[in-house]
Order: sequence, then C-alpha cells, then structure tokens
Amino acid sequence: MSSHRNPAAAASPRLRRRLYLHLDPAAWPGQGLSPANRLVAVAIVLSVAAAIIETEPTIGAEADHIFRLVETGFGGLFLLEYVARVWTSAEDPHYGPGLGGRLRYMLSPLALLDLLALLPLVLPMVGTSAFLLRMARMLRILRLARLGRFSSAMTALGTAVHSRRYELFASVCAALMILLISSTLLYVVEGPVQPEYFGSIPRAMWWSTETLTTVGYGDIVPVTPLGRALSALTAIAGIGLIAMPTGILAAAFSDVMAKRRAESGED
Amino acid sequence: MSSHRNPAAAASPRLRRRLYLHLDPAAWPGQGLSPANRLVAVAIVLSVAAAIIETEPTIGAEADHIFRLVETGFGGLFLLEYVARVWTSAEDPHYGPGLGGRLRYMLSPLALLDLLALLPLVLPMVGTSAFLLRMARMLRILRLARLGRFSSAMTALGTAVHSRRYELFASVCAALMILLISSTLLYVVEGPVQPEYFGSIPRAMWWSTETLTTVGYGDIVPVTPLGRALSALTAIAGIGLIAMPTGILAAAFSDVMAKRRAESGED
Amino acid sequence: MSSHRNPAAAASPRLRRRLYLHLDPAAWPGQGLSPANRLVAVAIVLSVAAAIIETEPTIGAEADHIFRLVETGFGGLFLLEYVARVWTSAEDPHYGPGLGGRLRYMLSPLALLDLLALLPLVLPMVGTSAFLLRMARMLRILRLARLGRFSSAMTALGTAVHSRRYELFASVCAALMILLISSTLLYVVEGPVQPEYFGSIPRAMWWSTETLTTVGYGDIVPVTPLGRALSALTAIAGIGLIAMPTGILAAAFSDVMAKRRAESGED
Amino acid sequence: MSSHRNPAAAASPRLRRRLYLHLDPAAWPGQGLSPANRLVAVAIVLSVAAAIIETEPTIGAEADHIFRLVETGFGGLFLLEYVARVWTSAEDPHYGPGLGGRLRYMLSPLALLDLLALLPLVLPMVGTSAFLLRMARMLRILRLARLGRFSSAMTALGTAVHSRRYELFASVCAALMILLISSTLLYVVEGPVQPEYFGSIPRAMWWSTETLTTVGYGDIVPVTPLGRALSALTAIAGIGLIAMPTGILAAAFSDVMAKRRAESGED
Repeated sequence: MSSHRNPAAAASPRLRRRLYLHLDPAAWPGQGLSPANRLVAVAIVLSVAAAIIETEPTIGAEADHIFRLVETGFGGLFLLEYVARVWTSAEDPHYGPGLGGRLRYMLSPLALLDLLALLPLVLPMVGTSAFLLRMARMLRILRLARLGRFSSAMTALGTAVHSRRYELFASVCAALMILLISSTLLYVVEGPVQPEYFGSIPRAMWWSTETLTTVGYGDIVPVTPLGRALSALTAIAGIGLIAMPTGILAAAFSDVMAKRRAESGED
Repeated sequence: MSSHRNPAAAASPRLRRRLYLHLDPAAWPGQGLSPANRLVAVAIVLSVAAAIIETEPTIGAEADHIFRLVETGFGGLFLLEYVARVWTSAEDPHYGPGLGGRLRYMLSPLALLDLLALLPLVLPMVGTSAFLLRMARMLRILRLARLGRFSSAMTALGTAVHSRRYELFASVCAALMILLISSTLLYVVEGPVQPEYFGSIPRAMWWSTETLTTVGYGDIVPVTPLGRALSALTAIAGIGLIAMPTGILAAAFSDVMAKRRAESGED
Repeated sequence: MSSHRNPAAAASPRLRRRLYLHLDPAAWPGQGLSPANRLVAVAIVLSVAAAIIETEPTIGAEADHIFRLVETGFGGLFLLEYVARVWTSAEDPHYGPGLGGRLRYMLSPLALLDLLALLPLVLPMVGTSAFLLRMARMLRILRLARLGRFSSAMTALGTAVHSRRYELFASVCAALMILLISSTLLYVVEGPVQPEYFGSIPRAMWWSTETLTTVGYGDIVPVTPLGRALSALTAIAGIGLIAMPTGILAAAFSDVMAKRRAESGED
Repeated sequence: MSSHRNPAAAASPRLRRRLYLHLDPAAWPGQGLSPANRLVAVAIVLSVAAAIIETEPTIGAEADHIFRLVETGFGGLFLLEYVARVWTSAEDPHYGPGLGGRLRYMLSPLALLDLLALLPLVLPMVGTSAFLLRMARMLRILRLARLGRFSSAMTALGTAVHSRRYELFASVCAALMILLISSTLLYVVEGPVQPEYFGSIPRAMWWSTETLTTVGYGDIVPVTPLGRALSALTAIAGIGLIAMPTGILAAAFSDVMAKRRAESGED
C-alpha cells in the first residue's frame, strides 16, 4: 500500500492530487475555472495576441526584442504547465497510474496539441531558416485551440453540430451542386463576353461562391441580361443555402436544450 | 399612522400615488402606456432626432438657435420627469419609503441612466470646450436607451438572449478562432502579392471580418488562386457563423414562447 | 319564400349561387382554385408583367399600341370580375343579402383593393397629365397584391408574422438603436477623415445600414484603423440582427405547424 | 421452380442476386455504401472534376488527349454499370421480373438519369458540331446529380423541404412582391438621375435583387437621399426575406427529427 511508503513519497502524491484538481477543468470542485487554469487561459490569449501583432511590419521591427522576451516567457510557462499535466495525469482514472498511464496521456489528442504548442520554443534552436520561423509563428497562433478545453459551452456547441453532421454534410453537398450548376451556366452565358472572369468553369466558380454566400465583393459582375437573371437566381438559391444549415442547427440546439431540461427535471 | 397627519401631508401622498401610477409602466392599471409615459417616449424620440439632424452641416448651421431652444425644452421636461420619479419612488415597495428608499432608487441603474440623460443640460454651463459639447451630443443620442423601460417586448427579447449567453459567447469564440485562422492563412498566401492589405495578420483581419460576416465591401479582394480558394472557404464558414447564433436564438425564442403558453394555460 | 317568386328571379339566384362558388376561393368545393379564379390570377400576373415591361424605354416606345390594347383588355376583364363579385356577394353569409349587404361588401378591404385596381382604366379618361399616367402605372403594378386572396399559404405566413409582431417590432427597435450607436461612433471617428460620407450622423447612417444588413455595396468604406474596428463590430452586430427576427419567425412557424397537427389529430 | 432449371441458369440468378445487393444502396446489408457503389461514386466525382478542369483554356488545350482518355474510361465504366443495373433490376420486387420489369426500371427517373449521363459517350460519335460537344460537356457535369441516390441525408433534406413547399412558395411570392415594389419605387425616385441603371423597372430589378438578397455587389448604388432611404428599407426587408425561409426550414427540420425519435422510441 502507498501509505507504507516513506513520508516524502506520501507528500508527493498529496501535492500531485492538489495540483491535478487545479489543472483538470473537469476535476475542479469550485465554480468556473481554477486560478491556475485562468492564468493559463490568459497566457494563451496574450501569447496569441503577441504573435498576431508581431506580424505587423510597422510595429514588429522596432519592438522585436520585446516580442522575443514575451514569447520566451509564455513558452516557459507552457512548458512548466505541460510537465505538470503529464505528472498529474496519474491522478486521472481515465489514463491509469504508472509510466503506462503517463504515456497514454501523452498520446491523447489534447496532450499532443499541448506538445505542438511547445514547438515554437524549440524550433528556433534547431535552425533559423525562414520556413522554421514561419512554422513557429503559425503554431503560436494555433495555441488558441487549446482554450477549447476550458469551455463547456464550446463543448455543447460541438455536440450540437456533431449530432447533425449528416444533415449539414448533405446541405454542403447541395451547396456544391448549386455552385457547379450556377458556374456552368454563367460560364456558358457570360464566358464569351468576359473571358477573363467567366472563361472557364473554375474561373466562374469564384464569382459563384461570392454570390451564393451573399458576400458580393463586386469585383466581378455579370453584364448580359441573361447573366443577370441567372445571377439573381443564384443569389436567391444562396438564401436557401443559408437557410438550410441555419434551420438544421436551430433544430439541433432546440433539441439539446430540451434534453438538458428533461435531465435536470426542470420546467 | 399617516391618516393622523395634517391634511396637506395626506393630500400629497394621494397626489404622489396617482403620479406614481402614471410614471411607473409596471404600475399603470390601464392597457399600454400611460399618457405621461407616452409624452416622455415621444419627447425622447424627438430629442434624439433633433440631436441627429443637428450634426448635418448643411442644416445645422442655419437653424442653430432653433435646435438650442428645442434641446432646452426637452431637457427641462426630462428634469421635471426625473424629479417626479425620485419623489414618487417612495410608492414603489421595491425601494421602500423615506430618504433611504429615495437614495436606493437614485442609485438604481435606470435612475442613473435618467440622470446621465440630464447631463447635456448641465455640460454647456460648465464650459464650452469642443470635448464637452461633443460629450453632450453623445449623451443626448444615448437617451434612446431610456425607451427600453417602456417596452415589454424588449424585455422578453433581452431575457431570451440572456438565457443563451453561454452558447452565444461560445459561438463568438468560434467566430474569433475562424477569423484568426482565416487571417493567418490569407496573410501567408496573399501577403507577398498585396502587402498593403494582407502584409500582416491585423491587416488581413479587416478583409477576414468583411468576408466572414458576408458584408463584402469589395475594397480588398484576394487575387491568387489559392487566396481565392481560401476566401471561398472563409465565406462558407461565415454562413456557419450566421447559422449558429440564429439557431441558438431560434431555440431560445421557441422555448420562451412554450413556457409562456404553459403558464397562461393556453393550448 | 324565394321558391314562390317568378321563374326568372328563381333562375337568377341559381346562376348567382354557381358564380359565387366559382369566384369565392373559400366557397369553391373542389381542390385548389376554380377555373374562373385561375383565369383571374393569370390575368393579374400578365397585366403586372405588361406594366413592368412597358417601362423599359427600348421596348415600350415601339410596342406602345400593343401595350394599350393589352391593358384595356385586362382592365375590361377585371371590371367584369368586379361587377360579378359585387353581384354574388349577396350569397356570402358574412355580408348578408340586399343592397345593404352589397354596400358592406364594397367597403370591405379586399373589394376596395379591387376597385383601386380598376382605377388605371379610368384615370387616362380623366386627363393625360404625366402624374395621372404615372399613378395609373403604379396602380397596375399594385394589382399583384390582389393575388394574396387566392393563396392559403400566404395567409398562414401572415398569421405567423402577425402572432409575433411585438417581438419583431422589438427587434426592429434594437436594430435602430444599434444603427444609431454605430452611426454616431463612425461619425466621430471617420467624420474628420471622410467628411463627405461620415460628416454627419444622417450621412453615416447610410453606411451603417449597408453594413448592419450585410449588404456591403462598398461605395463607402472606413479607412482609419479605429473606424475599421468599429465597422467589424457593426458587421458582427448585424449578424445578431439577422439572427433575431429569424429566430423569432422560426419559433412562430414551429408553433403554427404544431397547432395544425394537434387540430388535425395527426402524429 | 427455378431449382429445376439447368445449372448455368441457376448460377446466373445467384450472381445476379449478389450483384444486385452490391448495386442497390437500399438492399446492401452492410453499413454505408457497398464497394461497387463507392467506386461508382468516386468515378462520378472524378469524371465531373475532369469535365470542369477541361474548360480552363490554360490547362485544357495542352492535356486534351489525357482528358479524352479519362472521359472514355469513365464513360465505359458508367456504361458497364448501367447494363448491370438493368440486368439486376429483376431482383427488385418494385419492378418485377421479366422484360416488363426491366422496361419499367429503364423508364424510372433514376434510370433515365443514368442513361442521360451516358449520352456524352455517344454524342461525339453522332457529330462534332460545337453544340453537340457543349451538350456533352453539360451532361457530364450533370452526372453529379447521380450521387443523390447514394445519400440518405440528402433524401431527408429533400423530404423536409418538400413538406413545407407551400410555405416556401408563399415566401418566394412575398419576396417577388417586395422585389417589384422596391424596383418600382427606385425606378420612380432614381430613374431620372441614373437612367442607365434605374431607367425602367426591369433595369431596377437587378439592383433590387442584389439588395434584397444582401449580396450587394456595389456596381449600382442609389445616390439621392430618398433613394438611399428606400434602399435601406429594401435591405431591411431583405433580412426578413432571409428570415422567413430559414424559419420555415428550421421548423421543418425540428419536426423531422422529432418524428424520427418518436419512431425509433429513443429519448
């Protein structure tokens, strides 16, 4: 039994247990996020913000050394967090104790994402090629995805979308078909008049996407009467394409809420 | 007992009671708004309209003295209304009688908003600096927010939105993540070709917001094939972003209505 | 009793009865529309189409006499229809028999609309001023509204919208408030840079409406970083404004369908 | 009895039975699509992709013989598939055995669609006129519609849309009325200022469609204050037009899901 071990080893699990409760959002007994996770969440947001602002040439060049300092600081914090998470993963009954459990945790998607988020710290040490630096920058911005683990609302959103994945996929397929039909028709009608924009179906697809999603930049506009009539039909079909996923998701959210109320016995 | 007080004091509460019924929309026994509140609502709308039209240089300069007269008139009416509301607040069981109750009322959010709406009357007396005058103008337009208290439908709308604040917040977070990913990708792909518009992630974010919200001004348009393909994906993701809050709100309104019917015992 | 009257009078009501069944969509015993009402519906659509095409200068001038002939023909048909409807209105228990019933029918909104649709026939006889001719043209296009009486789905749509008029009105109010706040902020931020487009709140409102409704023509675009940030917030608020009425209507339609099923005992 | 026939004839129906189970998505006992149908689906997607890319002049000309080879290959596969489907249709109890059943199958909409998709193979043999080649190209892209048979989600989508066809039709009618009213008003207000774009109602309809669907290319923009005010109202009406079909479809999907759950006895 572990209670027969030496005091140091007995103290360590107790500290580990406490740290685990602070690091795992699901295990935290209090309301909302633990102070440790709040710090991590704020650090993620600031680290991503720094990575974004750094790309602006009018700012980035002057304050380069500040950005490096900030990045090294946040990187160190995330490294510390990663080590702590691996160590305390033994407390999670899902992965089990011992080195095997630690390895199972390290290979879980969330832990791999955390490891990926640490790469920007190591990449510049490997080399200073433009490609590696760019990779490091991308990875720093992808750190934002780590926030997902802290949000229960995000999880609920994901569940609702997941439950209707077939219907949503079908509406994407319907959208693609309409996109193709519209592109083909405009290619036939407007192609001879505006060969640069409608001279092939792939070219017409750019205009078609703009119109179906009702973005409408206006860089390409049909000029023939028939082209405009088809364009109007495409725009109306676009409204249907917005209506379809919206309707599917509205029904999905309505469902999720009804289930939740039924479970909690409210209403 | 108050019935033992002198006749003047006894008459005053009776007048106060009547005035209270006219001023508090919830206490009014009749249908809709009381005549007094209707007058106030119309005055708010006219006062805001005057403040808006006044900014138009081609109109404002000529009719300056008329606008000042109108503003002083409405300001006086709102001052009178404020004094009356503070005085009659003693009738509201929520705040209680006496000076303590009056103070509690004066510190309530609605009363503070009313007081803020009176500031434009006083600010020009403090000084005539451009900043103070601009502040006064802003505050006059914000008077519109006072209309909220008169509308029960507005309250219902607010309740529905409030009940899904976590889901709506999550969908805003999802939107921000997609915004960042889209900006980063376009920065990488279109940055070298159009450095002025895509030369940094913050710059690319302007285009990205335009596209995700399907506004599509068309002042900035990707020109490379890969940029256009990513742009199409961004626009499609934008439809998902419109679909999500719409779906959440549709479910929320459906819910609110079902509850209302259950309460009123209809159908 | 009417059976004691002379044979001619007895035959007339029998014809009137048959005509009434053909003219009143609600009284028609068959499925869909009666042949007479189908003819009227097609005539309305063709008459409106003619009035629209007639405005095109490249077509209208050449074929002027054809358009006049077509218009006179349709006008005659509608006059005949109107007389028949007034005559057969005696069969409608809603209006009652006799001259009083006929007058009550003639003053009903639908009959007044029919009468208004006949005006284009008479107006050119009164005078040939440009104003009268333009009025006649407008009235011919408004004939389309007469189609509403033939569509039960249109009525269901109207019922759903009507049942949520307070919520929809509240969302319009919320939209107006956001419109005003957005216009005011852009007027302050962009006004000094683009005085022609943002130099006053009414001017800024044009841009603001474009952005809130996500139309985004792109004729006016904010250029300052703060202006763009506020513009992004406006566009995001615009999505909320689309989501709100959509959510309200989705819940309303869901309701109407649930009631219909409950009434018909299905499911 | 068939068991009394010669061994060759007995073997043929057994092979036919096996092939039928592989070709009919509804008859396949396994999960998802059978390997044969997966191959067909992939072939359809690739064949359509080839037809699209072929239209691009910068690619098409160089690789013309490759595209011809690919098309002949896919055409042969689809021909084989068609023959197999006709042969195995005798196993489908819906069409019955014998030549009569085969003919009934060949005249079913799905089989006619399959036959139409084979035309591009034969058309170039009939002649090489530009019209025939263009027809062949269109038909190749329409092959995509054949994918519909493999997707149960697509069928569910179609059912939901079909169940609300009257409401959706009514909302399209409402959209058309608003489109006409908006075009007429803008024709009157903006016509004298911008005769090229608003000089007739059909011309104004192009702008009107752009605005009502919130596409907003920006190639045509009203310039008079009244025109802009009407334009703002049109854009707001456009939001209502998006909200209506979305609400109808949301209610329809909500319904379909509720029925499905009720049937499967879940929840």
